[in-house]
Amino acid sequence: MKAAILGTTGYTGMILLRLLCGHREVREILPGSSSQAGSPLMDVDRGLSRSIRAKTEKNGSRLLTTEEIAAAKPDVVFAALPHLASAAVCAPFFGNMPVIDLSADFRIKDPVLFEKTYKEKPPRPDLLEKAVYGLAEWSAPEIKKADLIANPGCYPTATLLPLLPLSRAGLLTGMVITNALSGVSGAGRSIKQTYLFCERSENTCAYGPGKKHRHQPEIKQGLDSIPGSALDILFTPHLVPLKQGMQVTTVAELRRPVTGGEIGAIYSEAYADKPCIELTAERIPETLHVRGSNRCDIGWHIEGDRIILLSVIDNLVKGASGQAVQNMNIRFGFDETEGLPLHGEI
Amino acid sequence: MKAAILGTTGYTGMILLRLLCGHREVREILPGSSSQAGSPLMDVDRGLSRSIRAKTEKNGSRLLTTEEIAAAKPDVVFAALPHLASAAVCAPFFGNMPVIDLSADFRIKDPVLFEKTYKEKPPRPDLLEKAVYGLAEWSAPEIKKADLIANPGCYPTATLLPLLPLSRAGLLTGMVITNALSGVSGAGRSIKQTYLFCERSENTCAYGPGKKHRHQPEIKQGLDSIPGSALDILFTPHLVPLKQGMQVTTVAELRRPVTGGEIGAIYSEAYADKPCIELTAERIPETLHVRGSNRCDIGWHIEGDRIILLSVIDNLVKGASGQAVQNMNIRFGFDETEGLPLHGEI
Amino acid sequence: MKAAILGTTGYTGMILLRLLCGHREVREILPGSSSQAGSPLMDVDRGLSRSIRAKTEKNGSRLLTTEEIAAAKPDVVFAALPHLASAAVCAPFFGNMPVIDLSADFRIKDPVLFEKTYKEKPPRPDLLEKAVYGLAEWSAPEIKKADLIANPGCYPTATLLPLLPLSRAGLLTGMVITNALSGVSGAGRSIKQTYLFCERSENTCAYGPGKKHRHQPEIKQGLDSIPGSALDILFTPHLVPLKQGMQVTTVAELRRPVTGGEIGAIYSEAYADKPCIELTAERIPETLHVRGSNRCDIGWHIEGDRIILLSVIDNLVKGASGQAVQNMNIRFGFDETEGLPLHGEI
Amino acid sequence: MKAAILGTTGYTGMILLRLLCGHREVREILPGSSSQAGSPLMDVDRGLSRSIRAKTEKNGSRLLTTEEIAAAKPDVVFAALPHLASAAVCAPFFGNMPVIDLSADFRIKDPVLFEKTYKEKPPRPDLLEKAVYGLAEWSAPEIKKADLIANPGCYPTATLLPLLPLSRAGLLTGMVITNALSGVSGAGRSIKQTYLFCERSENTCAYGPGKKHRHQPEIKQGLDSIPGSALDILFTPHLVPLKQGMQVTTVAELRRPVTGGEIGAIYSEAYADKPCIELTAERIPETLHVRGSNRCDIGWHIEGDRIILLSVIDNLVKGASGQAVQNMNIRFGFDETEGLPLHGEI
Repeated sequence: MKAAILGTTGYTGMILLRLLCGHREVREILPGSSSQAGSPLMDVDRGLSRSIRAKTEKNGSRLLTTEEIAAAKPDVVFAALPHLASAAVCAPFFGNMPVIDLSADFRIKDPVLFEKTYKEKPPRPDLLEKAVYGLAEWSAPEIKKADLIANPGCYPTATLLPLLPLSRAGLLTGMVITNALSGVSGAGRSIKQTYLFCERSENTCAYGPGKKHRHQPEIKQGLDSIPGSALDILFTPHLVPLKQGMQVTTVAELRRPVTGGEIGAIYSEAYADKPCIELTAERIPETLHVRGSNRCDIGWHIEGDRIILLSVIDNLVKGASGQAVQNMNIRFGFDETEGLPLHGEI
Repeated sequence: MKAAILGTTGYTGMILLRLLCGHREVREILPGSSSQAGSPLMDVDRGLSRSIRAKTEKNGSRLLTTEEIAAAKPDVVFAALPHLASAAVCAPFFGNMPVIDLSADFRIKDPVLFEKTYKEKPPRPDLLEKAVYGLAEWSAPEIKKADLIANPGCYPTATLLPLLPLSRAGLLTGMVITNALSGVSGAGRSIKQTYLFCERSENTCAYGPGKKHRHQPEIKQGLDSIPGSALDILFTPHLVPLKQGMQVTTVAELRRPVTGGEIGAIYSEAYADKPCIELTAERIPETLHVRGSNRCDIGWHIEGDRIILLSVIDNLVKGASGQAVQNMNIRFGFDETEGLPLHGEI
Repeated sequence: MKAAILGTTGYTGMILLRLLCGHREVREILPGSSSQAGSPLMDVDRGLSRSIRAKTEKNGSRLLTTEEIAAAKPDVVFAALPHLASAAVCAPFFGNMPVIDLSADFRIKDPVLFEKTYKEKPPRPDLLEKAVYGLAEWSAPEIKKADLIANPGCYPTATLLPLLPLSRAGLLTGMVITNALSGVSGAGRSIKQTYLFCERSENTCAYGPGKKHRHQPEIKQGLDSIPGSALDILFTPHLVPLKQGMQVTTVAELRRPVTGGEIGAIYSEAYADKPCIELTAERIPETLHVRGSNRCDIGWHIEGDRIILLSVIDNLVKGASGQAVQNMNIRFGFDETEGLPLHGEI
Repeated sequence: MKAAILGTTGYTGMILLRLLCGHREVREILPGSSSQAGSPLMDVDRGLSRSIRAKTEKNGSRLLTTEEIAAAKPDVVFAALPHLASAAVCAPFFGNMPVIDLSADFRIKDPVLFEKTYKEKPPRPDLLEKAVYGLAEWSAPEIKKADLIANPGCYPTATLLPLLPLSRAGLLTGMVITNALSGVSGAGRSIKQTYLFCERSENTCAYGPGKKHRHQPEIKQGLDSIPGSALDILFTPHLVPLKQGMQVTTVAELRRPVTGGEIGAIYSEAYADKPCIELTAERIPETLHVRGSNRCDIGWHIEGDRIILLSVIDNLVKGASGQAVQNMNIRFGFDETEGLPLHGEI
């Protein structure tokens, strides 16, 4: 199987390269880059060992143009490109092979909401309906048949995974209050003053509070996917001095009194056969424990008529490239965790 | 003026030493330590330069026992000791000179609530009523006359400063949802596996969610100090890989529609003559900007019928030792900011 | 194949667990711990996902006593135990199956030098001669037949790999000056004040300069293994705020003028078929590029009659657990890199 | 006294602002910026509290053009500008008031060496002879009379301070081998990919090894200032994940056997009345202990016929802005440490 990566030189592209290199069903990787096509892969990504050559030797282990990739007819395309730029670069591939798009270009189904959120019209409104929102644990049947998978954002992944089972069980009501912490890699490899080491080290800040962050509408859309849900959400993300990691703390109102055991039973049923979810119950999850892995760990605490949900992921793995590979696995009928690390760091 | 520090070898004691060294009204510092009395100060605190000797030479620039300190008759005593240990060590000083206690021993007024929170009876219930809760911007008149000042906790300081003016203005109702981030120094210099560099670097976690953290009752007591307040609070602190810094994000329900300008006016009135408060309004405050300073920066964002309050402090300065010096300044009629850094880091 | 780990709860043990979990020749892992035997593995090491059970289910996925491990007759034993404690714990295994010891107990061949270095007599002097020093790239023939492999220290690994080829080629003379930087995990999981987050963050220091560090004699012994070498070494390690990573900068005198190309040719010949060595030549290696991998990257710069050698490893992987697995692979005739990550971080 | 800062928005400018704000002899600060002139100071430097207004109110607490500064006739000018740009911006001030230049434009006396090092001719060769190299502890008599002070580089400061007394005592010979570690702020506020948080966190690397770094000739010039010195130097700097801090480890050959006590006596004599130098002798200095201070801490270890010198500074304070203020103090006859923090961090 041949897998292409569009945008290999960003953080999500670099992670995809490592994951696909260890994937037993992928024999050939086609690493694309519009800005650095032609460069030897190992000059651009210096963490690679020469073992990468085994899967890239056909193209001289160098970065390829989109045209070269199209000519090589990959079996699957991963687009790790910026929002609003991705859809155009992917054009040659749509309809010819499954495309897994890590950008936001196909995540929001409603064109009006898309434009309100991204300040531009959706680049390919004709494909919005066809695109499957790839929250892997919730959409496997659709993903199996999808030709275009909109890989979810990191915040929506970490926020929705603990909320959806409880919402489906009819337990939640009112305004969900979510606070989230993200590692700096969530901003991608953008070269801006605010992401310099000296500006982020020993520093935290909130940004885009309430409904201002572009992931808020994506989360709301996910909450609305549960029939009968009337949940709304205030979402305040924060930047903390982590490289990779994301922590979400959500307070929701309960419709009726519940016990921790009841909550545990609902989660166990929802995620029993989902290898990328671990339930920590009363033990509180930590981001280090999922760093580098495709896991989401979920804990909870009940306080009167409210429940506090605690979830952690690696924003670049389960929050981006890992979930993309998980979606490929589901789409092609491979083992769901093939090529995906499940253990976190020590 | 002679100032004593009980517990000079912990982080708050070390900060007190630096602040008092630069304080123009303090001529002599009496640095105490029960565990290392007799040791040369510069051997124990290696960040000190020999300039510290100017204010410690009378005692040979070494750490003193409590008895030696009592014999030297300080004009003021700072107790930077662990909870439940502080009151006993301070016994020789009560009634003889003002004591500023950085522990929690005198913060909670209700002995039943104290015992529920700290799992022991208050060590000196006879002094609870006499002790003044030293949230400097809110209790100056009482602090001026106090002989025992209970220096507030870091989380209560950063949480109450933005909430109190709005609560006093009658704008808030219901359950306040607060999420907070703390630097690791908030745990003091405790030698535990969980505070090792390798366990905290690239790691975040929540702890004590809801009403489990011992600062939740202290914050609730502060909210209750506003006549007519019926606010309750869910408080979830998190540990993030900072050394010094604290960020509090609070979501509260508004009783009626307000504008950002109205909020700004309320804060301006409350804090106009308070040199340690900066209002950032729509601009979001960052912890780095107050690191090392005695400032609390406050921002806000209105979202429908809720307001999001953003506040940052240095947990060891405005959240502990700096506020203690501020309280001394108020108590003795010095300039409120004497000896206190107001600029944060670059 | 059954692999046992003695000391699973330290950092090197935790890394071994992850590596062996992904090793295709290892069907069963026997995780030992003297202090926490009986505890469920996932309670002790919270980064593990439940996928660990596949290889630990026979023992209920819990930590085992040394006796339980001995009864289970492993095919190979990894000892990830403290210096001077390891040899005794390993006693039941010596002679029954290959033992790979990550401690220093068998690294120094000369009992007098051992005692001078570790302030105690070697715990098993009878085995010193038999033990093979497992610097994988240099001792494969001996490792293949070894029943006791002394896994090298992290500093000796990163220092010797660039020095040995040039010394063997007769190019070096005099006193080698080596400065090294280590991540904090090099101290293991020791619970000491000096390894707290607040003491190591924003801090660097040297320690054990010159010939005081216990790895200096180990490096000297390695240099002496080259016939005719008269090199001596001054070695100054430093602690820097990294978790995992090691950087070694060595200045050596050249016996005669050489070109960069000549140096490159010597290294290429020495390491051409060594998949864990990458030569970066004039490009300077960085620790991030090898983090999490079993690689050593080597660069160099010639300055008149001296050469500056630059090498980087992950101190816990190529400097400890990864090299131990590499040694197992060589010993059992598996592919040398089976189970070993070769790509570093992004 | 009125002090001007050219280049207030870089890290060294921001530190100068904080130091001068606390300086008792400076009544007015004129903060300049070519790129952001006119902007309110507190919008640009968000760590400032409104207390900055006391010294900047005459100019509306906003950034000034160079022309506005010239018109205001400052008593002293600090130029915190990039190399090769500084001399031109300073032109209006030369000859009118003392200028303290933090760039490299006047550090190298030999125009040929300057051009070889900086790849351009010295911008003002006519002033090279007049400029005094401001290594404060070594040039006070010249600084007192100087109208142009070339503030030393951070690496030269930390390297020369321990070397000069021993060289002057005739103890050293041959090739000095220096390894240095710098915090990332040493690169200034340059917005480059390599200085992003995600590229520098958990990463170290060497750069410019041997004689390639532009501070090597500056150090060599400093060594040559000792009559009779024949010392040469190989200098390899490294980048480590610190924000502020610099550690220098130097190995030098001794001409004759010495004791630690003898070394201590030489240093004590050289630096007895120098308040910014602390001798740690056998105790090893750490960068955290000098962070934020204008101190250089010096330790040493003798190993046979070589000595290992260990020195630490804060690269932005004693390595830049702090030494600049120290030079102003010397130049104007103020107390040498006025306005300068001497204690490091906790």
